[in-house]
Amino acid sequence: MNKKAVVLLSGGLDSAVSAAIAKSENFDIYALTFDYGQRHKREISCAKKIVSAMKIKNHMIFRIDMRKIGGSALTSGIKVPKRRKIRIKPDTVPVTYVPARNTIFLSIALAWAESVGSKDIFIGVNAVDYSGYPDCRPEYLKAYEKMAALAVKPGAGKNIRIHRPLVKMSKADIIRTGGAFGVDFSKTHSCYDPAAKSAACGECDSCIIRKKGFREAGVKDPVRYVK
Amino acid sequence: MNKKAVVLLSGGLDSAVSAAIAKSENFDIYALTFDYGQRHKREISCAKKIVSAMKIKNHMIFRIDMRKIGGSALTSGIKVPKRRKIRIKPDTVPVTYVPARNTIFLSIALAWAESVGSKDIFIGVNAVDYSGYPDCRPEYLKAYEKMAALAVKPGAGKNIRIHRPLVKMSKADIIRTGGAFGVDFSKTHSCYDPAAKSAACGECDSCIIRKKGFREAGVKDPVRYVK
Repeated sequence: MNKKAVVLLSGGLDSAVSAAIAKSENFDIYALTFDYGQRHKREISCAKKIVSAMKIKNHMIFRIDMRKIGGSALTSGIKVPKRRKIRIKPDTVPVTYVPARNTIFLSIALAWAESVGSKDIFIGVNAVDYSGYPDCRPEYLKAYEKMAALAVKPGAGKNIRIHRPLVKMSKADIIRTGGAFGVDFSKTHSCYDPAAKSAACGECDSCIIRKKGFREAGVKDPVRYVK
Repeated sequence: MNKKAVVLLSGGLDSAVSAAIAKSENFDIYALTFDYGQRHKREISCAKKIVSAMKIKNHMIFRIDMRKIGGSALTSGIKVPKRRKIRIKPDTVPVTYVPARNTIFLSIALAWAESVGSKDIFIGVNAVDYSGYPDCRPEYLKAYEKMAALAVKPGAGKNIRIHRPLVKMSKADIIRTGGAFGVDFSKTHSCYDPAAKSAACGECDSCIIRKKGFREAGVKDPVRYVK
């Protein structure tokens, strides 16, 4: 029997590649998607399509209403910024940051992992071509792993691993890796704009980073863009 | 203006005393109660009564359905054990343990703290007269605090503190301290038994620990017990 891994799967490009890597390492995947009140709900239907395309048997869509917590353009009325020149500086975190989002997501993943008897959690965070969120940095993930080992039952905590296979890759590398594992990018959704239905806006941070990545990888992005 | 603190308030005895301590330290309290699918729902109405008695202005009841995660007598059909002789051994965790519960609760507290501009979180965990849950131990809480400092925006993370004022107190000490701060124990609910309505069962781990604490403190417990 293969080892189980809980894989965070948002419906975006990175987590789809992270899931493909987990699969290539022969893990039995427990995919976990959050319906957290994100305005770009299309993510969730994309996650379902990825699960189906990858023939993943276990998929939990977990509802947690982060709108109650506030403080982010992704869950509230704050406008998603467009055509921003993205510069990552340690002291500037964009308004699309959701307070402690990865900490909450990883904690629920940890609970599920403990419940199903898994010691492996995959998260598709990236600290190279990213928006500057603090909870994507390697030092944060290391501290999380240490905490997780103490958070669960003795035995369950030993050798717990938060896999972050993409953390040091460029977006172009992520796209090349995903391509090599047969990820169907047409099923992934990256756009932050809640209005994005059949096409992505092409102008939010996430679209800009994605387009640049495909360009650099020399791969055609199957997603349609408004601009 | 007083500093803000997010205070985890379950409706139980310990968190009520933890809130009273936060109040005595002049924090402006943001009380956070979880409706997590616990079978002992009476906790939540007790939390509301405590908030009202303590004149706390901000109270968020956050819904998160941990029944989906499974693995605990507090959220599933597993029977709550009765008349158990409680012995804390590092390798025995009772069936009332909810996987990663405190990690999830603290993570949502951390998100709310960041959103309202607070660096102080109070949790009423206790590692003396307790049920042997791993996520109540001081080493876990220290690791959580380190992780939290890296999880949030630079600046927000600096000096973040997970206050655990009860962690090394006996249950009797907690009761004496609560008494000194005027906590109305009649409004607190400790029983794990979902059938407990107007009276506590008196036989689950939580009732046994509570009764022993009142006895040792020489204080009368205003809660009625079936046995």
